[in-house]
Amino acid sequence: MNTKKFFLNENEMPQYWYNIVADMPVKPLPPLHPGTREPITPDMLSPLFPDELIRQELTDERFVKIPDAVLEKYKIYRPSPLIRATELEKALNTDCRIYYKYEGGSPSGSHKPNTAIPQAYYNAQAGVKKITTETGAGQWGTALSFACAQYGIECEVYMVKASYEQKPYRKIMMNTFGAKVHPSPSDRTEAGRNFLAHNPQTGGSLGMAISEAIEMAVQDEHTKYSLGSVLNHVLLHQTVIGEEAIKQFDLAQDSPDVIIAPLGGGSNFAGLAFPFLREKLTGGGSQRFVAVEPASCPKLTKGEFMYDFGDTQGYTPLLPMYTLGHNFEPASIHAGGLRYHGASVLCSQLLKDRLIEAASVDQLECFAAGSIFAKAEGIIPAPESNHAIAQVLREVEQAREEGKQKTILFNLSGHGFVDMMAYADYHDGKLQEHELTRAEIQASLKEIKELQPAAVSEI
Amino acid sequence: MNTKKFFLNENEMPQYWYNIVADMPVKPLPPLHPGTREPITPDMLSPLFPDELIRQELTDERFVKIPDAVLEKYKIYRPSPLIRATELEKALNTDCRIYYKYEGGSPSGSHKPNTAIPQAYYNAQAGVKKITTETGAGQWGTALSFACAQYGIECEVYMVKASYEQKPYRKIMMNTFGAKVHPSPSDRTEAGRNFLAHNPQTGGSLGMAISEAIEMAVQDEHTKYSLGSVLNHVLLHQTVIGEEAIKQFDLAQDSPDVIIAPLGGGSNFAGLAFPFLREKLTGGGSQRFVAVEPASCPKLTKGEFMYDFGDTQGYTPLLPMYTLGHNFEPASIHAGGLRYHGASVLCSQLLKDRLIEAASVDQLECFAAGSIFAKAEGIIPAPESNHAIAQVLREVEQAREEGKQKTILFNLSGHGFVDMMAYADYHDGKLQEHELTRAEIQASLKEIKELQPAAVSEI
Repeated sequence: MNTKKFFLNENEMPQYWYNIVADMPVKPLPPLHPGTREPITPDMLSPLFPDELIRQELTDERFVKIPDAVLEKYKIYRPSPLIRATELEKALNTDCRIYYKYEGGSPSGSHKPNTAIPQAYYNAQAGVKKITTETGAGQWGTALSFACAQYGIECEVYMVKASYEQKPYRKIMMNTFGAKVHPSPSDRTEAGRNFLAHNPQTGGSLGMAISEAIEMAVQDEHTKYSLGSVLNHVLLHQTVIGEEAIKQFDLAQDSPDVIIAPLGGGSNFAGLAFPFLREKLTGGGSQRFVAVEPASCPKLTKGEFMYDFGDTQGYTPLLPMYTLGHNFEPASIHAGGLRYHGASVLCSQLLKDRLIEAASVDQLECFAAGSIFAKAEGIIPAPESNHAIAQVLREVEQAREEGKQKTILFNLSGHGFVDMMAYADYHDGKLQEHELTRAEIQASLKEIKELQPAAVSEI
Repeated sequence: MNTKKFFLNENEMPQYWYNIVADMPVKPLPPLHPGTREPITPDMLSPLFPDELIRQELTDERFVKIPDAVLEKYKIYRPSPLIRATELEKALNTDCRIYYKYEGGSPSGSHKPNTAIPQAYYNAQAGVKKITTETGAGQWGTALSFACAQYGIECEVYMVKASYEQKPYRKIMMNTFGAKVHPSPSDRTEAGRNFLAHNPQTGGSLGMAISEAIEMAVQDEHTKYSLGSVLNHVLLHQTVIGEEAIKQFDLAQDSPDVIIAPLGGGSNFAGLAFPFLREKLTGGGSQRFVAVEPASCPKLTKGEFMYDFGDTQGYTPLLPMYTLGHNFEPASIHAGGLRYHGASVLCSQLLKDRLIEAASVDQLECFAAGSIFAKAEGIIPAPESNHAIAQVLREVEQAREEGKQKTILFNLSGHGFVDMMAYADYHDGKLQEHELTRAEIQASLKEIKELQPAAVSEI
């Protein structure tokens, strides 16, 4: 019998997270203080994050040791399996070898606990009593709720209102792990009241929820804030995915030609891709790396690379990234985790330097791909993960047309058990497309252009 | 670091299912034809099942070879992990060692595919084009939907109406795997129309849904019927759980003193317990085996051992079992998979002979236990599995009182991702108790007493 699932033992878990900054040929531009337009300093981040996370955010060391106490918690669900999609290969009748790293076996059902656990750990070490955060579809909020429960930290989640109403199961999961959940925008914060005054009917956005969570955190010295993607330290923690996968490909005596993952803020993609990208940057190779985004939120394929805020209210530093503008309100597609206006600084710089590629897919194509996958492999994927699967199917088709055989790896970042209404909409023909026009994007980006510092106005 | 999760490689999967009939000191009584009261013969089962499943239902051989083709499909999600509940042990501050076999990583999120896959396989081998079945909470229907998709067999599911309405996600999962789902009782069958005439407001029951599925199967020569629990061949297939666990306890260099699992029809419990019970029956030992049922459906602790139908309409053979009567309509608790009026013949005989024990727990105790478990171990359990966890907590408390230390193993038969409304009801204080009185049970059993054959009237 051929092996289908490649497992590592717990004592084979990676001991280090990988920081791609060390190996980037062009280093990322610094985050800027929105007032002075000068690079931010560590102390400016202190109201939001504990010192060790700030250090990790700004470091350029190649490897960061994973604390033993974090490894001990990772063992709750890690190492995750690398699975050969044997039944999907048969269903597609392809010569390509398809593998997926399955992150859906975690407490929240996605890759998010990989960073929630260390973030909660460092906060607990620093004596923090409460953490605030935002969540879109609820994956991140669930992960942080669980991680906070592990360390006895209070957790308060601002959940994008459209998701709060569409996905009641996610709220209950967070409650079950002991967290408080508020629909965002709420009337609990100045930012929230501002958004509601501007548009009382708004379904919210990740950018708005981030503003609310930040505002609550900075008001109390025992409260910090936590972000589930975008930032360097978040991407750093997620590299445990790719580090495991490299070891598992050794077991499989194979290696991927193309590595695919969904991109919302960037941690899903970076987690799988960056360790493989290190191999290419330091050892050469022809591997390709494809970040997949929804057609309705296409910052990588249709946005512009410029300085922008990470949140809607403008509380964060200015970050150099591909963006649709921090006031952009994406259509309420089911892949709530991908509805973010910008891409992480690291992913943005790599795309700008053509070290990674980007693709966008619409919802119909995603759910069609996810349904084929589910029947074959027995896992109903999260809507976010369906974006990667859709791209896998495109790669298989291309290989067929070119008469080539290739090895494809993708991140099955989560299961869709709490997203079944999305599948019902698909079955019932209710999925709508939301492809944006260039004009709409230009309108959204217009005011962002004024934020650019002189030195980088031509980036 | 101590090991938390004990994995087997795919090539270490058990090659045989275990049939406890071979080792039972008192063999089970035969199923009887309801008309003649004579033991049924294989040909009487032919309209329902393919020959190989009938053979497995009636065999007394100790081991049945798992076909290589089934092992190949098992690899989609097996072997399942044996997990040491290290974080739960800490939360309970106990010296007991607690382990769980986690079956929630399967395509349907429970142990059910362990028998759905071989049942679909043998039906496919026999040229069957369509399978009908019943489902309560939806776990079984989902598993069979997936298994049928693997073999290109059409799947039609009669889902208990109360669950159909309470658990829309389960229906969508079955649809995603390609199955058709009907709320039961329906007007599609004579049995269904009969139940509706008797009580138009009925929320249905597993017994009624079985009648409907059987009726549809016997009408067409290319259609067979499939049951998710109760029958010998179903319990047989589930023993892959316990066979794996025995190997994993060797890896852990430990052995369980008490083995606990929920009991609805019996396959959940039998799957984990029977291989360990073989070790006790053939090699001695003091292990205990506890089947846990809901207080609102207490056939083991308050029912009577007698011949009864497996379905409400009376289409099945008469089975010798602990029962509450085939007309019993259990309260619509959230653990829909445990709402069945009878216990499998094998489990019933073993309980009668005091080789296993039974306990009943109410919903509140179940969800309180499940919530403690979720926060500690990161897996939100299915309501059915919470019954086992509640008993684990009782065992831990008893060990504490007795100043003893023991090793506890339980079957975490499924996750609760699609049962979150049950947790919401628990959080909101809406869970109601449904403990039955002896008088209610006697009333339900009254007419069943007339079904007893003379020879076994005093069993």
